[in-house]
Amino acid sequence: MSETANTNIKNTGLRGVAVADTKISFIDGEQGILMYRGYRIEELAGKSSFLETALLLLNEDLPDKGELDEFTRRVVEERKMPDFLAECLKNLPKQASPMDVLQATVPLLAAADPELTVETREANVRKAVRLISRLPAVVAAWHRVRNGLEPLPPDSGLPHAANFLWQLHGEKPDPGMARDLDVCMILHADHTFNASTFACREVVSTQAHMYAGIAAGIGALSGPLHGGANARVMKMLGEVESEKDIPAWVRRQLEQGKKIMGMGHAVYKTTDPRARILREISRRLGEKLGQPKWYELSVRVEEAAVAEFERKGLSTLKPNVDFYSASVYCMMGIPADLMTPLFALSRIAGWCAHIIEEKFADAQGKPELYRPESEYIGHYCGQMGCAYQAIEDRKPASQSPDV
Amino acid sequence: MSETANTNIKNTGLRGVAVADTKISFIDGEQGILMYRGYRIEELAGKSSFLETALLLLNEDLPDKGELDEFTRRVVEERKMPDFLAECLKNLPKQASPMDVLQATVPLLAAADPELTVETREANVRKAVRLISRLPAVVAAWHRVRNGLEPLPPDSGLPHAANFLWQLHGEKPDPGMARDLDVCMILHADHTFNASTFACREVVSTQAHMYAGIAAGIGALSGPLHGGANARVMKMLGEVESEKDIPAWVRRQLEQGKKIMGMGHAVYKTTDPRARILREISRRLGEKLGQPKWYELSVRVEEAAVAEFERKGLSTLKPNVDFYSASVYCMMGIPADLMTPLFALSRIAGWCAHIIEEKFADAQGKPELYRPESEYIGHYCGQMGCAYQAIEDRKPASQSPDV
Repeated sequence: MSETANTNIKNTGLRGVAVADTKISFIDGEQGILMYRGYRIEELAGKSSFLETALLLLNEDLPDKGELDEFTRRVVEERKMPDFLAECLKNLPKQASPMDVLQATVPLLAAADPELTVETREANVRKAVRLISRLPAVVAAWHRVRNGLEPLPPDSGLPHAANFLWQLHGEKPDPGMARDLDVCMILHADHTFNASTFACREVVSTQAHMYAGIAAGIGALSGPLHGGANARVMKMLGEVESEKDIPAWVRRQLEQGKKIMGMGHAVYKTTDPRARILREISRRLGEKLGQPKWYELSVRVEEAAVAEFERKGLSTLKPNVDFYSASVYCMMGIPADLMTPLFALSRIAGWCAHIIEEKFADAQGKPELYRPESEYIGHYCGQMGCAYQAIEDRKPASQSPDV
Repeated sequence: MSETANTNIKNTGLRGVAVADTKISFIDGEQGILMYRGYRIEELAGKSSFLETALLLLNEDLPDKGELDEFTRRVVEERKMPDFLAECLKNLPKQASPMDVLQATVPLLAAADPELTVETREANVRKAVRLISRLPAVVAAWHRVRNGLEPLPPDSGLPHAANFLWQLHGEKPDPGMARDLDVCMILHADHTFNASTFACREVVSTQAHMYAGIAAGIGALSGPLHGGANARVMKMLGEVESEKDIPAWVRRQLEQGKKIMGMGHAVYKTTDPRARILREISRRLGEKLGQPKWYELSVRVEEAAVAEFERKGLSTLKPNVDFYSASVYCMMGIPADLMTPLFALSRIAGWCAHIIEEKFADAQGKPELYRPESEYIGHYCGQMGCAYQAIEDRKPASQSPDV
């Protein structure tokens, strides 16, 4: 379970370098295993709920009934968005990206947290409850506001994922579909030190509060190489819809140096275990809705891409979590640009757990402020520095000015 | 100039580990040297301006007159805050922390950037211009709004730092004081891979846009161990004001395991070169304003602390950038909770330069997505994972529930 640090790590994005101890989640990339707090993701997807899994991540083990009921009660209670935030959303330009809006919202929610400056473990768990509860309301509200609709109040009778679908669409969702979304949220809830989780931990290593860290995580998740990938899978499926010969399309893409979205992973060298579960959800949902198109298209792209990769000796490139979540979310009526926000509404559980671990680790090695170094390879005129010339004596740079 | 990676880096905050190449700034922590693009900080503080230094950081060398004039014209032109943002600020709870408001603002400014999705180097420099120009307006506006005042429009006749003081206080500042603030901004403009800059780079390594990265940097800077330190120095000076025997107070603090704020640095093993310049500004400003108290108090704390550290064999603990910036900002009428935001208005130049370098490095090593690993030290029941027990069969955890 231990990774040894690579001594030549410059410009490698810290790939393969263990930067800290963690008790939260564990990946075996060779075997395709993901565990939260020792429980395999397949076990949790089959038997747990998102809120129970969130509590598992925040604490060290599964809750008993009293703990889970209390946690659920609090999440339901905190669902209401502060009024000033609803007002603020109404003033924003309608074209604002949902991920930018979500990132902006988090530090504003900080202003509504009565315990913002209380830095105990318990207060941080309560901040996590507020974030887990309120982010879905923000995403749903922004989607309605940008479409000229009023935000909907939460329905305290609905479970977590079902309430999100209700606040988004204004229709009570089919319970089976709501459970599928709940499972998707379990699958996305944590994933060790991915770029967004690392950003959360890095920011709070300065002793910044949880909201400051979460906003950083949302920023990282918005990147096309990270959480933005599911929306790009959807775009790809849209493009490929009219293709007759998908293997030829895959070959053409690769010849042009393009990627097949949703294939391959920094950590997994085999199929992402989450992709296996999502593939089955996609199949089942397509069948149930009489809308098998996106699932079937996904399978054909997967088969063609895997065959082509194997031909090129790239047998470790397999579907990742984004590959089948795209079709699943699409069938749930989630617009492409809300797929990454939906990822955030799930990963918020893991981010909060990692922030709490960063702040209150009792491990042998209490984490330190992240303050790496860099190697300077720029202009150098010796220890006294380059001479500052008066502006009228400067020659125009040989390169064209880029301002 | 090269740092070798330490092979045992877990839980050390990557201290001493070179994670990437850079051409932007260089620190020699032993000698107390800081350079931007090859120019020593003393040279720039004495002869350059903040906007010229910002352009130096964004490009590879000092601008010629045409470039600087054009850059300055654009910064002045972009100063106006979007109307929706002004409206949004008016709705926020008055107690919202200025750093939280600033962090929230950045992704909202993204929505007002006409080139948000254009990912060329040139478009990113133009985004940097907008951020450098608009963040001071946001900080000033929020300070006025929270005090029940109307935000003031920018004055296109005033230089950068002077305009900030005008938008903040509603009085044309003394040009000498405005120049002192401009020098402070030069001193804070960059500092290699500090926690906030690393957060910016980490976030955009996912190909997230510049605003997403800057919001992360602001989050990291808000931490008491990072940018929050200058406000804590000011608090300390306030506490020590009535002390008769400062050496005894210093000893008492250290005996109680407390820190002397603004002393010591992760990288410098001698006096921070920025602290030397700020010390002189503090002295001069105190004299000019007939208000030498804060400077004199700072000097007495420095002398007592350095003597006490040396007695304990800690001779590398010397004043850092925060130690004298606190008294300087105080004399400029900057409230303690705007000192860290003011740091952000300066560091924004370096953050943007690092984001551009992360996105468009032409070095041998193009940066990779930051995706480190962790070492799992938590619950482990073997490869099949722990068994999920039905909730009614679970025993209450021995630890008290923390939700």
